[in-house]
Amino acid sequence: MAGNSFGTLFRFTTWGESHGPAIGVVVDGVPPRIPLAEPDIQQWLDKRRPGQSRYTTQRREADEVKILSGVFKGQTTGTPIQLLIENTDQRSRDYRNIADRFRPGHADYTYWKKYGIRDYRGGGRASARETASRVAAGAVARKVLGSGIAIRGALVQIGPHAIDRAAWDWSAVEENPFWCPDREMAARWADYLDGVRKAGSSAGAVIEVVASGVPAGLGEPVYDKLDGDLARAMMTINAVKAVEIGAGFAAVALSGEENGDEMRMRNGEVEFLSNNAGGILGGISTGQDIVVRFAVKPTSSILKPMRTVDANGNEVEIETHGRHDPCVGIRGVPVGEAMMACVLADHLLRYRALGGEV
Amino acid sequence: MAGNSFGTLFRFTTWGESHGPAIGVVVDGVPPRIPLAEPDIQQWLDKRRPGQSRYTTQRREADEVKILSGVFKGQTTGTPIQLLIENTDQRSRDYRNIADRFRPGHADYTYWKKYGIRDYRGGGRASARETASRVAAGAVARKVLGSGIAIRGALVQIGPHAIDRAAWDWSAVEENPFWCPDREMAARWADYLDGVRKAGSSAGAVIEVVASGVPAGLGEPVYDKLDGDLARAMMTINAVKAVEIGAGFAAVALSGEENGDEMRMRNGEVEFLSNNAGGILGGISTGQDIVVRFAVKPTSSILKPMRTVDANGNEVEIETHGRHDPCVGIRGVPVGEAMMACVLADHLLRYRALGGEV
Amino acid sequence: MAGNSFGTLFRFTTWGESHGPAIGVVVDGVPPRIPLAEPDIQQWLDKRRPGQSRYTTQRREADEVKILSGVFKGQTTGTPIQLLIENTDQRSRDYRNIADRFRPGHADYTYWKKYGIRDYRGGGRASARETASRVAAGAVARKVLGSGIAIRGALVQIGPHAIDRAAWDWSAVEENPFWCPDREMAARWADYLDGVRKAGSSAGAVIEVVASGVPAGLGEPVYDKLDGDLARAMMTINAVKAVEIGAGFAAVALSGEENGDEMRMRNGEVEFLSNNAGGILGGISTGQDIVVRFAVKPTSSILKPMRTVDANGNEVEIETHGRHDPCVGIRGVPVGEAMMACVLADHLLRYRALGGEV
Amino acid sequence: MAGNSFGTLFRFTTWGESHGPAIGVVVDGVPPRIPLAEPDIQQWLDKRRPGQSRYTTQRREADEVKILSGVFKGQTTGTPIQLLIENTDQRSRDYRNIADRFRPGHADYTYWKKYGIRDYRGGGRASARETASRVAAGAVARKVLGSGIAIRGALVQIGPHAIDRAAWDWSAVEENPFWCPDREMAARWADYLDGVRKAGSSAGAVIEVVASGVPAGLGEPVYDKLDGDLARAMMTINAVKAVEIGAGFAAVALSGEENGDEMRMRNGEVEFLSNNAGGILGGISTGQDIVVRFAVKPTSSILKPMRTVDANGNEVEIETHGRHDPCVGIRGVPVGEAMMACVLADHLLRYRALGGEV
Repeated sequence: MAGNSFGTLFRFTTWGESHGPAIGVVVDGVPPRIPLAEPDIQQWLDKRRPGQSRYTTQRREADEVKILSGVFKGQTTGTPIQLLIENTDQRSRDYRNIADRFRPGHADYTYWKKYGIRDYRGGGRASARETASRVAAGAVARKVLGSGIAIRGALVQIGPHAIDRAAWDWSAVEENPFWCPDREMAARWADYLDGVRKAGSSAGAVIEVVASGVPAGLGEPVYDKLDGDLARAMMTINAVKAVEIGAGFAAVALSGEENGDEMRMRNGEVEFLSNNAGGILGGISTGQDIVVRFAVKPTSSILKPMRTVDANGNEVEIETHGRHDPCVGIRGVPVGEAMMACVLADHLLRYRALGGEV
Repeated sequence: MAGNSFGTLFRFTTWGESHGPAIGVVVDGVPPRIPLAEPDIQQWLDKRRPGQSRYTTQRREADEVKILSGVFKGQTTGTPIQLLIENTDQRSRDYRNIADRFRPGHADYTYWKKYGIRDYRGGGRASARETASRVAAGAVARKVLGSGIAIRGALVQIGPHAIDRAAWDWSAVEENPFWCPDREMAARWADYLDGVRKAGSSAGAVIEVVASGVPAGLGEPVYDKLDGDLARAMMTINAVKAVEIGAGFAAVALSGEENGDEMRMRNGEVEFLSNNAGGILGGISTGQDIVVRFAVKPTSSILKPMRTVDANGNEVEIETHGRHDPCVGIRGVPVGEAMMACVLADHLLRYRALGGEV
Repeated sequence: MAGNSFGTLFRFTTWGESHGPAIGVVVDGVPPRIPLAEPDIQQWLDKRRPGQSRYTTQRREADEVKILSGVFKGQTTGTPIQLLIENTDQRSRDYRNIADRFRPGHADYTYWKKYGIRDYRGGGRASARETASRVAAGAVARKVLGSGIAIRGALVQIGPHAIDRAAWDWSAVEENPFWCPDREMAARWADYLDGVRKAGSSAGAVIEVVASGVPAGLGEPVYDKLDGDLARAMMTINAVKAVEIGAGFAAVALSGEENGDEMRMRNGEVEFLSNNAGGILGGISTGQDIVVRFAVKPTSSILKPMRTVDANGNEVEIETHGRHDPCVGIRGVPVGEAMMACVLADHLLRYRALGGEV
Repeated sequence: MAGNSFGTLFRFTTWGESHGPAIGVVVDGVPPRIPLAEPDIQQWLDKRRPGQSRYTTQRREADEVKILSGVFKGQTTGTPIQLLIENTDQRSRDYRNIADRFRPGHADYTYWKKYGIRDYRGGGRASARETASRVAAGAVARKVLGSGIAIRGALVQIGPHAIDRAAWDWSAVEENPFWCPDREMAARWADYLDGVRKAGSSAGAVIEVVASGVPAGLGEPVYDKLDGDLARAMMTINAVKAVEIGAGFAAVALSGEENGDEMRMRNGEVEFLSNNAGGILGGISTGQDIVVRFAVKPTSSILKPMRTVDANGNEVEIETHGRHDPCVGIRGVPVGEAMMACVLADHLLRYRALGGEV
């Protein structure tokens, strides 16, 4: 049912399967007179595009976006923006060995239970390909947010290997194929993932997304809290199993006095002495950086045989052949950034509705 | 703006501040002809009620619920059910020392930034008192779900002290004031929290909620995933900073073959050999137990002085006096159960809309 | 399901049956720092209150409103406002002759078909009593709109007797029990309705609601058009069977050049030379008066016997006894005004979200 | 803002301008396993297509629909269905004389006031072209409703000339270019419209849409009434200024006993002796035919000069050149049918959610 939309005022709806002719997204609720052209969107799609290193799937997609509506003479008009991405790499593939078998850990089982029908080609709507549409929507959201709000993501853990946060350097993120802010760890991940890839296995990842420049006051009580919407946003990304804000699970082991971010004045502005809150208190932004982390499980499409059943109730084995993505989490970085942008754009518009000036 | 509602078909709206005359909830979308009376709701409110042990706030509230509409001759009529709980313990209290000072880690700062006005009495809508309304809504949701679906919660960590999962015994949960399934750990927590309480400090907690008997097929792709809605549901509970499903963050360190839950047949039914998925794949229930965990930060209202600012931009200190809740997470167990019930009831109705039989 | 709410950003939810302990409404999405007290709401409820003339039902209700939440020190706080109205006139009444018989033209048949249960006491949620909650919400909406936007309603037809529009005088509206702007027609209606009342019959009415001072630019394309929302708003009022904007059905017989409202400049502002559009073009306000008319059918609860069936499938006769409302449309005037106010308040907030200044 | 979607469970979102590369619609919430192919949709688009007689615009559009997603092996999969229609007739046209002048009665003025930007080519989103997307969505809705529910529309008035309802013959509707059920009136309309066309003027129309086979019980109280949703649905169609259900405005002049539809039993089923209610009581379907009528104003794009202003505040004259549509209401018949189908499909799914069997 009608579950393919996200947002209240800034609202997008994605559509398309990985093996149909195209995928895309309608972005509704974009304010008028914002400069927007295809390269504004393409740059973020390029960042997510598969096949850019040996650590991600070798599917070759141009992921070329076309604006079909909502823009006139280089500006948004306030009407819905349809962004279309053609699927170019639908190479003929032999699905016989998986067409009626369920991959452990994959959505094909639940889709079949729910719908009684299955588009077995590449995962259908549950395919990671859907996330290209999110990235396109996120590119529009960034334009709505304007240049004062910066959103950046990084990979902070692959498999059991977490970065050293003391070594965090944002400039390192663009230098390695992992969006890793810790140069030393990036090198270790390269070795580790080569092993995973050769073994036909897969590894999970933790992604951290940070938004800077967000004014205090975004987010609605009680059920439309900013962190509630972020949690939903990230949890709906394929393969995500956990979300945390600020100190997250680690806050549990802190005392109240350690966890509360103390405040002082600096140049007439409130300054927080720490950011365990991750920039959100009571569901509303504090003005500090918004910090979200989420966990991506290891992909279920691996080259190793696993025990499963088929649609006829037979006990069988399954192993995926062909293109293989040892760490699907890597491509999750631009997706997490996009979802952050979309949540913030929606709340920015809601904030304005209340009379807030941004 | 309009952020006080939750759900699509089973939809509730809460209202009321901790120091007004009453709080309550309108539950809309309840199917007709379901037997419902006040004791069905009261039993769950009693479970959440403060002041039942020395480990929670000493506020004394009867939390007596009244059904004002939607029930006729002991049955739901299909019309909205208004549940009202009077506030009886609004004891006159001296707020002078906190009326214009912001508690570090508390929502009073962000509410003031957002609204330019502050109901400083007891936290207003950001008060944990709001969760009584959630518990009332959850009681109705349980009736919608019927007796085939069981929802149980437990505390699995307080401060740095996590339970031994091997010692998990559901029957222990009702025997101690912590909803702890590990008897040995319950005793250690008692000592630990006595220390926290005497120190005027506070501790965080991790809560786990498990739903059994949920059929496969609940949840909608892509943005209305069952885990997306659960993440939002739990993250909107006061003081929650993290949510995970199944293996959650721990899934990151597993290999693909360890993480994927293998399947066999048993008595003609699919049986999973593990439950790292937490009962959800691709946002849709698998038929296994739905397992959600969430982290509650240590409460910010503590007896220790902290550095902060006031509404006039002065650097000041603040310490809360009076009633003090050393571990607000304890009372979060029935709240987490209630939110699980509400999310499942909503998705159950959506599932039926698609033609699903339950 | 969940059908008891109205609005997107300014959103209210009504609850309660005419014979329960109380009815009420939660108004969510009200901006903070708006002065609001019970008399602001009571004045509009008093206008709608039954029993003020012999032309409306003799049910005696104080309709005294209580604010239970969302207001602190005389100002809105941005949190949901619960308004509660106790039912005081639930006089014991003999429902035996109608408890299982369906009144022709009444919702009791469809409720029974839909829900399989029927609260036969006074119409349940389908009772005109529900409209008191709308009036209360509308009173809050007026405060959101501010003093620059005026909303006034009038009755323009009872039974076959329409007013002379050339005789329209707003000052007459408050002088007669019909809200009639045509003094001469008011006198004729008095005679006509006396006849209807004595005959135990009932008459329909047409209500016109006009909003002045609405800025150009309110309303969203394509499905959230201002007139689309107004049509829904009015059509959901009990017994309403038709809605029109501006020239409405009469526009059909006009030529294109007669219907289009020509424009000139006056003091630097656009001035329209007519208002066939009723202040709305393409779903968006033009800056002219917003003009809506709606038809209220004659009430189905009459003292004359009619042929019907009962819940057991027997052919029977039915006639309503006791209190009788010869023209339920009269009390519809403040209800129509309230719905206009709520629709405009919602669109005003949405307009601000886009950056519009009001 | 985000106003381009319609429906709750069966929900569609339209996009595209008349002079962009394409228009289209995403239909979300379609149950799985419904047979669907392009011809199922094309047949209804063909019915609406312009240029089929001299009484409608001469724009030549193939209106060929492509299914881009949501269908696999000839069946719906439960995922969103993207329907795309390319714009083929974007003939180069001289807009200089209207680019900055506002047509009286046209949305170009309000769009410009709202958005501060104007896509002057052919009306942008306010163009009647948008209704092709509605027709495509309606075609899918019909498949959801199944063959037991029939939806038919007819034109019942053009300009001042209303049909003789006693002469109504559904078989006549397909025989004339007006969808007129009264053969004699169809001939008179032909003459009348020839005059209107030659004069460069335009005429309004009234459309009636009837749905048969709708079970009792569809529609939600109080704000999601079936008639409330129908009113909104029809009022959001371009140029519509009025909507009525059943007897509509005529009900006002009836007495209560004339208006109430009496009930008898026939073959064990309830039979109504009249249908003033238009098949809806209390917002819920009765099982009778659902009858909706709506008024389409004369189009504002006429060849006669009218007084207006331009974007710079100058008083000017305007007249439209080129293609001209003397009665835009004619093409509104398939659009009204489509909106009826979409409203019913949405409520059918909501009805099932409650447990209703259809």
